[in-house]
Amino acid sequence: MASLFSRGKDHVEVPRLRSRQNRGGEENVNRVALGELTPDLASYLGRAAYLQLAIFETASLALSIAPHTRGKNAMSRVAGSSLEKYEGLITELTRSGHDPAATMEPFRREIDAFHRTVLGADWYETLVSSYVVSGLLDDFFVRLAGGLPDDQANRIAALLTPELGSGYIVDELRAAIDADPKLASRLAVWGRRLVGDTLLIARSALAVPENTAPDEARLEPVFTELIAAHTRRMDVLGLTA
Amino acid sequence: MASLFSRGKDHVEVPRLRSRQNRGGEENVNRVALGELTPDLASYLGRAAYLQLAIFETASLALSIAPHTRGKNAMSRVAGSSLEKYEGLITELTRSGHDPAATMEPFRREIDAFHRTVLGADWYETLVSSYVVSGLLDDFFVRLAGGLPDDQANRIAALLTPELGSGYIVDELRAAIDADPKLASRLAVWGRRLVGDTLLIARSALAVPENTAPDEARLEPVFTELIAAHTRRMDVLGLTA
Repeated sequence: MASLFSRGKDHVEVPRLRSRQNRGGEENVNRVALGELTPDLASYLGRAAYLQLAIFETASLALSIAPHTRGKNAMSRVAGSSLEKYEGLITELTRSGHDPAATMEPFRREIDAFHRTVLGADWYETLVSSYVVSGLLDDFFVRLAGGLPDDQANRIAALLTPELGSGYIVDELRAAIDADPKLASRLAVWGRRLVGDTLLIARSALAVPENTAPDEARLEPVFTELIAAHTRRMDVLGLTA
Repeated sequence: MASLFSRGKDHVEVPRLRSRQNRGGEENVNRVALGELTPDLASYLGRAAYLQLAIFETASLALSIAPHTRGKNAMSRVAGSSLEKYEGLITELTRSGHDPAATMEPFRREIDAFHRTVLGADWYETLVSSYVVSGLLDDFFVRLAGGLPDDQANRIAALLTPELGSGYIVDELRAAIDADPKLASRLAVWGRRLVGDTLLIARSALAVPENTAPDEARLEPVFTELIAAHTRRMDVLGLTA
């Protein structure tokens, strides 16, 4: 099912900062640009882990409000996949000598507020949230891992890449969208709000030296790529991004 | 942490119906009594799996409403443990040729209603629910597995026995209860309601031939044992069952 999303193995190949000189092509430069703004390991992991908890909570909410047993069962796999990613990030935290709860704590308030805005008002909106927010954030954190030490970067990229259960979400949403044009336009609007809020919370993860702003000219292509991947995800649903 | 609960290895040793003649002691007879009311494999698994989803939903709710990051992190392990049990039961269902969603469907309405009554109104009540309901139901379904074929019975008992994360719940609740006698009495009342509702839903899993009632005289000791285990769990919290 992964092939549906045009999200192939390029998600596991983390671009390395050190190899910039050896690689050509604009795309590499774009990706590496994000690696230069990677925060320290603890901040990266604390934020990524707490965001993964929020992604898990959205999947669990979808499971709880699922209007049929099939949906509950399918969303249990999505929730489980997110929980595995979370546990993997926590393992990285403890492996590097950090207390998980204390390291996540500074991000709690901001991410809780974000989570409330992207929960969705019903089954379909929450499904779109689960699919869109996890897609964007996992994508973003795989790219941002480019600035971490090799070992962690590769393990984290492998950890965050799988999209277990999204095949079900796509099938369920496509069927509902095909049957109801009003739902399609409501969910397209919802998807636009999600991408805005999610890219904002993603940006706040960038390590920008005090009293400076990130180099927008270098960042823009990175966010253009993230939005392009998001647009492909919405296309798969039959929605305009 | 399992030792806190006086729930030792007797939970993995599923009493076998066939061995009744070979074993002495009232306790074995009591346990075997439940095995005689074990429903067919599909009904057993469908009900146990859907109840495990409800247990997972309670743990996820606790995670969502946790007042601190430490609590969120700890409840992620409780939720993950419940999800593993669910997935194990679903694996048994597919292995025996049953469609998971269709097999769970007949139990949906009754268990959803049960789930709503045991959710709890706040962090502490939901923690008690997570601990008490999963303890009672896993206990019950391990005993009820006694009437299933050997292979399944042993795998299911091994699957449902671990109580991952309950050590955290106990610590968190004990600290709050020690600090606030009013909370202690409120949670004791809540625990009594939980045990009543949970034993009712457990009873509804028993396969009783049409137009007959279960043999109460034989069932009573089984439920007495379940309640005794529940009482030990409440004792650990410092609450009167």
